[in-house]
Amino acid sequence: MSPFTGSAARTARWEHLRVDLTAGVATVTLARPDKLNALTFGAYADLRDLLAELSRERSVRALVLAGEGRGFCSGGDVDEIIGATLSMDTAQLLDFNRMTGQVVRAVRECPFPVIAALHGVAAGAGAVLALAADFRVADPTARFAFLFTRVGLSGGDMGAAYLLPRVVGLGHATRLLMLGEPVRAPEAERIGLISELTDEGRADEAAGALARRLADGPALAYAQTKALLTAELDMPLAAAVELDASTQALLMNGEDYAEFHKAFKEKRAPQWSGR
Amino acid sequence: MSPFTGSAARTARWEHLRVDLTAGVATVTLARPDKLNALTFGAYADLRDLLAELSRERSVRALVLAGEGRGFCSGGDVDEIIGATLSMDTAQLLDFNRMTGQVVRAVRECPFPVIAALHGVAAGAGAVLALAADFRVADPTARFAFLFTRVGLSGGDMGAAYLLPRVVGLGHATRLLMLGEPVRAPEAERIGLISELTDEGRADEAAGALARRLADGPALAYAQTKALLTAELDMPLAAAVELDASTQALLMNGEDYAEFHKAFKEKRAPQWSGR
Amino acid sequence: MSPFTGSAARTARWEHLRVDLTAGVATVTLARPDKLNALTFGAYADLRDLLAELSRERSVRALVLAGEGRGFCSGGDVDEIIGATLSMDTAQLLDFNRMTGQVVRAVRECPFPVIAALHGVAAGAGAVLALAADFRVADPTARFAFLFTRVGLSGGDMGAAYLLPRVVGLGHATRLLMLGEPVRAPEAERIGLISELTDEGRADEAAGALARRLADGPALAYAQTKALLTAELDMPLAAAVELDASTQALLMNGEDYAEFHKAFKEKRAPQWSGR
Repeated sequence: MSPFTGSAARTARWEHLRVDLTAGVATVTLARPDKLNALTFGAYADLRDLLAELSRERSVRALVLAGEGRGFCSGGDVDEIIGATLSMDTAQLLDFNRMTGQVVRAVRECPFPVIAALHGVAAGAGAVLALAADFRVADPTARFAFLFTRVGLSGGDMGAAYLLPRVVGLGHATRLLMLGEPVRAPEAERIGLISELTDEGRADEAAGALARRLADGPALAYAQTKALLTAELDMPLAAAVELDASTQALLMNGEDYAEFHKAFKEKRAPQWSGR
Repeated sequence: MSPFTGSAARTARWEHLRVDLTAGVATVTLARPDKLNALTFGAYADLRDLLAELSRERSVRALVLAGEGRGFCSGGDVDEIIGATLSMDTAQLLDFNRMTGQVVRAVRECPFPVIAALHGVAAGAGAVLALAADFRVADPTARFAFLFTRVGLSGGDMGAAYLLPRVVGLGHATRLLMLGEPVRAPEAERIGLISELTDEGRADEAAGALARRLADGPALAYAQTKALLTAELDMPLAAAVELDASTQALLMNGEDYAEFHKAFKEKRAPQWSGR
Repeated sequence: MSPFTGSAARTARWEHLRVDLTAGVATVTLARPDKLNALTFGAYADLRDLLAELSRERSVRALVLAGEGRGFCSGGDVDEIIGATLSMDTAQLLDFNRMTGQVVRAVRECPFPVIAALHGVAAGAGAVLALAADFRVADPTARFAFLFTRVGLSGGDMGAAYLLPRVVGLGHATRLLMLGEPVRAPEAERIGLISELTDEGRADEAAGALARRLADGPALAYAQTKALLTAELDMPLAAAVELDASTQALLMNGEDYAEFHKAFKEKRAPQWSGR
């Protein structure tokens, strides 16, 4: 637990997500399989609040985001979200869309790597959640569909028009966001949208193994790598080089760097503390 | 026609381009086939002025840019442009180069998707025009050549040094702009420079079909997707997420979003109005 | 020699690098083959100072960076760098990390193309040096490993978290920098990390041939292409288009542009002066 904890209570029970915390690895499962894990207002709000809580603690070093049942996530629920937004006023619409964007910012800015475990459909908001993750571990049934224009909305939803060109290039991103057509695993791998392709049905297991490796490794080094990758997309070269220099100077005072050198000298594997 | 129209007359006849407007689709053809559609001062100026005019109207929802004859466009005419610029003073040189850049900015900033229909050569300024388009629909004869250094100029012409790294990555972009070697269709597809590869001789037809689909679809959603992709290349994540939120809130008040929901409930295809 | 030379002497002898200057091509060789060209404080400092000296002169038009022996460069020396940094204070750590970053900035900002000639391992700082080059000419034995996290440090070292996403996309870059696993030549070529793949053992020769071609060609055009590619990663579209316009106006007053036109008219190859 971080010493920087105030009065806000830890949430005792997440109603719209299944959350497991085991030895530094958080596993968050979208668990509404009869609806292909379609997102509701409550699920978005829980993701926003959960990531904020976990970011304040020191106990989480890696997070897996998975979906139960036939697919990862079919996106915003047509009834509970599209239907409801049709009777909202402008301020409410802005509130809703800011909340979904806050989830993506939280995924990009939380101080631990996020691994999306993907099988079946990742559509709409589900595709953007996967896109915002640091790793996309997918099995061959995985497919992405940024289908916002298919409901009459902008393909730039929740930061997708910022993130996708930076992952697959502007040409592919334009095609995917504009047309909303499904991108199956082979194409997704070819254009750089998948980090690791597993055997069928093994994405959750492989994502868990990667999270375990990251949590047991030099976790502060991983966290800073993520922070720099996120920040330096928005910085010029000279500033990025300066940020790298001060980050490495900081980590060179850390326990894991000294442990690496000691282990190297003693010809053994390092015992990482993550500090 | 937009209500925001002042005194400026609509151009009655474009002398340096062939322009067709049919039910929301503009088809602009470079029609100087005996010169491989080499661009003249007049052709650049027409592209600049045409895109400005079309951007002021509401009648265009998608634009195809094609080339007549053996290829798409061989770039600036050696005699009429290179020869002429050799006797220009500094202010004139700057005027000319700003004009060509304005064409690229207009392609990126006009409020409708632009589809380049490509066969044969897209060289020099022709390659950059294709690069600036939202979609590059190409047949197997298509080849790109950013051959500016081959005439003693910078590979960064008309925004190419900005756009190409964002489409194919900095490594490929450096090689292509520095050396000016031709990139044939298979490599172009592999590195993400082609959006859709067609059978030989079918690029114009496929580009037209895509334009028709875009014009008949939720055209305001497509226009905003384009605008966000263009703008968010130049914005940090937090600002991009905020822009996405306000754009979606806007479109959630639009006709097409309501129509999608109604059609979904009635189990029929949506009738898009593009508003 | 440039007229803009002051009192600072040209370095007579580089102790930590082998440097050859032949007709506009500088060849810089990491020559510590018994240590796989592991970098020392002196080698970093020499790279920083050498690139600054060469940037002030007009004699260099292309630079090859190569490694002698079994590989290109294994990165920072475990004993001479990691060991030494463990007893440094904060100011010294910052000094060291700023120096390594200055090398990368110098590679990106020097007024001539830099070609990394790669075989065997390019690890740690060696991988980032290769990444910072304009061209990576590699043989099939080449492999990259951004292994900073493996020693407990951030994967964002020397600008890697800025450069790598812009070369291979954010997804691949996250995986490579976070995990530090080796990327062999076939994958490196597939994701855009290699500019030219040669036969085994021919990377130095191919890099030399490319450098010769660049030095004998329109060298100022190449230098400006590099400068624009570097600068426009950090600029919005409108500014990039304006920079391109003024750069082309400048080069249209240059000798090589006029020579191209003259040679074209006389149906002969241009004689480039590089001015």
